[in-house]
Amino acid sequence: MDFAIRAATLEDCKDIMRMMSELTEYEKITDQVTITQKDIEQDGFSQNPFFHAIIAEVPEQHKTKDGHTKIGYSVYSFTYSTWKGRDVYMVDLYVMPEFRGKGIGKALMSKVAQLGQAAGCTNLSFTVVNWNKTALDFYRKQGCVDLTSDLGYHCMSCNGDVFQRMANRDC
Amino acid sequence: MDFAIRAATLEDCKDIMRMMSELTEYEKITDQVTITQKDIEQDGFSQNPFFHAIIAEVPEQHKTKDGHTKIGYSVYSFTYSTWKGRDVYMVDLYVMPEFRGKGIGKALMSKVAQLGQAAGCTNLSFTVVNWNKTALDFYRKQGCVDLTSDLGYHCMSCNGDVFQRMANRDC
Repeated sequence: MDFAIRAATLEDCKDIMRMMSELTEYEKITDQVTITQKDIEQDGFSQNPFFHAIIAEVPEQHKTKDGHTKIGYSVYSFTYSTWKGRDVYMVDLYVMPEFRGKGIGKALMSKVAQLGQAAGCTNLSFTVVNWNKTALDFYRKQGCVDLTSDLGYHCMSCNGDVFQRMANRDC
Repeated sequence: MDFAIRAATLEDCKDIMRMMSELTEYEKITDQVTITQKDIEQDGFSQNPFFHAIIAEVPEQHKTKDGHTKIGYSVYSFTYSTWKGRDVYMVDLYVMPEFRGKGIGKALMSKVAQLGQAAGCTNLSFTVVNWNKTALDFYRKQGCVDLTSDLGYHCMSCNGDVFQRMANRDC
């Protein structure tokens, strides 16, 4: 199937938000999502953006029954590894279910690696939930390493009141 | 004990590199480290830096036997969460062993949260190795959530030849 990968623009935010919702629904975390389309517009498409995004698009003749031609995306940002240096972090990788198995996810991931490489990165990092076997198989097949299984890495976070208290405490 | 937390400057890179080496030695990954002081200078202290850093410093009278007054640091970057929006990612948090248990790590972490909050973040994320019980206890005591234990998150990465092939393949 024909498809194109390109940098996302402000005009893609509605579709990015739609696909992000599909992804969080699949990941069963919809109740924890607080971001809106306006956040995505501000945070990804103003000066000093918090993330970058690319879009996978199919020609009109392959549009979904709801009329969508934007059928996949990836969101990524740049970070640092004290082992490896410049690191590209893939926040999300998503392809709509009916378009899977056609190399679109692989192409999106390659584009993220390519954009990372162009920025001097030598490492691509991301997280995946262990019950998403399809995703795990997909990543393993491409030679990615599971730092949690192999080296015992745990992802941690703090938000809400805990974050606010931490930020505001007097040390 | 008196100590101060401040933004790192180019002049701190030698000490950051020294402490990064101490940290990777503790984490038993020294053989995998490829970055140099020059990388840190370029990647953190030029335009569009890949990371930011803060330093913990003690007065002269508390300097180590080797003469160091810069005794802790944190490296962080900004990323995005498709649940929560703006996210501050703490790459490293380190305090030299003889200065632990004095609230310096807590103060460094609070400063990262504060700087994140000032940039509009509502979430702090980081990774920790599961055999580092001291670190795990420290983070849990502050109310942080273990996304790997609680939600099955796995940290993944790809680098070296796998990354190069991924970036260069023709999709």
